[in-house]
Amino acid sequence: MTTLPLPTVADVEAAAKRLAGHAVRTPLLEVSAVNARLGFRLLLKPEALQHTGSFKFRGAYNKLAMIDPADRARGVVAFSSGNHAQGVAAAAQRLGMPATIVMPADAPAIKLANTKSYGARVVTYDRWRESREEIARAIAAEQGATLVPPFDDPAIIAGQGTVGLEIAEDLAQLGLVADAVIAPTSGAGLITGIALAIKSRSPGTRVYAAEPAGYDDLARSLASDAITANAPGAVSLCDALMAPQPGVLTFAIARETLAGSLVVTDDEVQAAMRTAFLDYKVVGEPGGAAALAAVLTGKLPGPLKTVVAVLSGGNVDPQTFIDALA
Amino acid sequence: MTTLPLPTVADVEAAAKRLAGHAVRTPLLEVSAVNARLGFRLLLKPEALQHTGSFKFRGAYNKLAMIDPADRARGVVAFSSGNHAQGVAAAAQRLGMPATIVMPADAPAIKLANTKSYGARVVTYDRWRESREEIARAIAAEQGATLVPPFDDPAIIAGQGTVGLEIAEDLAQLGLVADAVIAPTSGAGLITGIALAIKSRSPGTRVYAAEPAGYDDLARSLASDAITANAPGAVSLCDALMAPQPGVLTFAIARETLAGSLVVTDDEVQAAMRTAFLDYKVVGEPGGAAALAAVLTGKLPGPLKTVVAVLSGGNVDPQTFIDALA
Repeated sequence: MTTLPLPTVADVEAAAKRLAGHAVRTPLLEVSAVNARLGFRLLLKPEALQHTGSFKFRGAYNKLAMIDPADRARGVVAFSSGNHAQGVAAAAQRLGMPATIVMPADAPAIKLANTKSYGARVVTYDRWRESREEIARAIAAEQGATLVPPFDDPAIIAGQGTVGLEIAEDLAQLGLVADAVIAPTSGAGLITGIALAIKSRSPGTRVYAAEPAGYDDLARSLASDAITANAPGAVSLCDALMAPQPGVLTFAIARETLAGSLVVTDDEVQAAMRTAFLDYKVVGEPGGAAALAAVLTGKLPGPLKTVVAVLSGGNVDPQTFIDALA
Repeated sequence: MTTLPLPTVADVEAAAKRLAGHAVRTPLLEVSAVNARLGFRLLLKPEALQHTGSFKFRGAYNKLAMIDPADRARGVVAFSSGNHAQGVAAAAQRLGMPATIVMPADAPAIKLANTKSYGARVVTYDRWRESREEIARAIAAEQGATLVPPFDDPAIIAGQGTVGLEIAEDLAQLGLVADAVIAPTSGAGLITGIALAIKSRSPGTRVYAAEPAGYDDLARSLASDAITANAPGAVSLCDALMAPQPGVLTFAIARETLAGSLVVTDDEVQAAMRTAFLDYKVVGEPGGAAALAAVLTGKLPGPLKTVVAVLSGGNVDPQTFIDALA
């Protein structure tokens, strides 16, 4: 029997100390007209405002800041559909480390360009025919660089969990207890980090994942109590949420802490992007708006008085955004 | 000789106490790719994330919270091109006061609808033929309600000035001193409130207004050292910045504290809205992006190492936003 190196809330608290002064402390936003429509208080945590336009900076910075200074000069390698790429590139730039990022050739142009803007070397691959893991591992082995996985890593999960710690702190200051906290989910690094923090501070709060249709691997993994992959080749507007299956670590945390995973369609995600624009004045990318979509379409089980939804990223091409507004 | 009832930084500090727990404490956002293009650090204060989608909530809440409880039941009246309307309506709703708002019939649909969503009664007028001041004063007299002016009022200026206090606090925490702070300007309530706070905490920081072409009344008033009105009938994309001239109080503060007012075109404002979308993930309305436009187009005199720009509002119709992105 092997013991998994699962992070705990103490790791999330340590990550918060490393990130202090380096990550944006995003506020909780509330719009009374939306609350009135929903019949409960909805607080939105806009991680689109985080450095690099998504929460991914948190996990990446925490991971890189834990690398032994003697190993930093050999740099880091990451594979990513985009937001993790930018997070690792920006964290590496801040810490003075070289970074190589393996990205799908069909990632949104803005994500490719932004990753390069942080000084990273970008290597592209064919999403349908090549293994990004193999390419990244080969580069890491060749250069002696540290591989920074997108989600299935204790330091990454702990870093993302600082989103949950901030939510818990802000709710306490407002004198509120959330009935539910929900965040967009791909490999489940964000939602499991959040769950570690929220369950530690408020055990009665239910924590939910939100996934896009076709990439509802966590919902199906929870239902079968075993890691279950998506059928290959599914198409979704949520380019940031296309991981093939939950991680070993993230699933182990998810099955102990999550109340469920709610599945949303592309149309529901576009409507949530419109609400984020009209009511919260925040730019949401499709995947980033998945949790808001689940809340707005009434998918969260009640009773509900106070809900927190994370808007996890805002890296979206203008035309995709225009399509959602139109 | 009469003495003007000019607010001081002590009034701004008192306003900050009244607003604590009621206004959103907006963060400072920074994007390294933008900094690299500019050659200095730009920190963006996104007041679009404030309740009602603009800074106007701050001044309105401060003003209403200072009304004697015995007078609150008779309510408040305001005239506004939109953002002040929403600010007063939302503040009144929070304080349990009835509100009547006099708005131009051609204000953006979203602003009319949102004002009503806060429970306010809306009375419309013809921007080119009727006097909103007269209509509002008549309603106030009839109902015994308190008139809440959009900018030329010590409590309003002090409330908006909390934007400046937060900037000063956050800069101190980052160990930074700003060379320049700039905010969009119409009647100059925001920029003069900010100037009171910034000049108190950091006397060497230069404070600038940003105005749209055709509504550059403050720039011309500062140049002539006398309140100067805009020529009537000018057209601008910046519907939130169309006040006819600076206020008596705001001009008195402006001439003592401001380093100048920089004028931007509609095209420059649209480009700034695109940058707010692409880089900062914040929705900016045209007028809200005027200060960012002035910075991005190099209008701020140097030398510059650290600059703070306020993005003052995000209440924009989808089509206007789409036009700016396209």
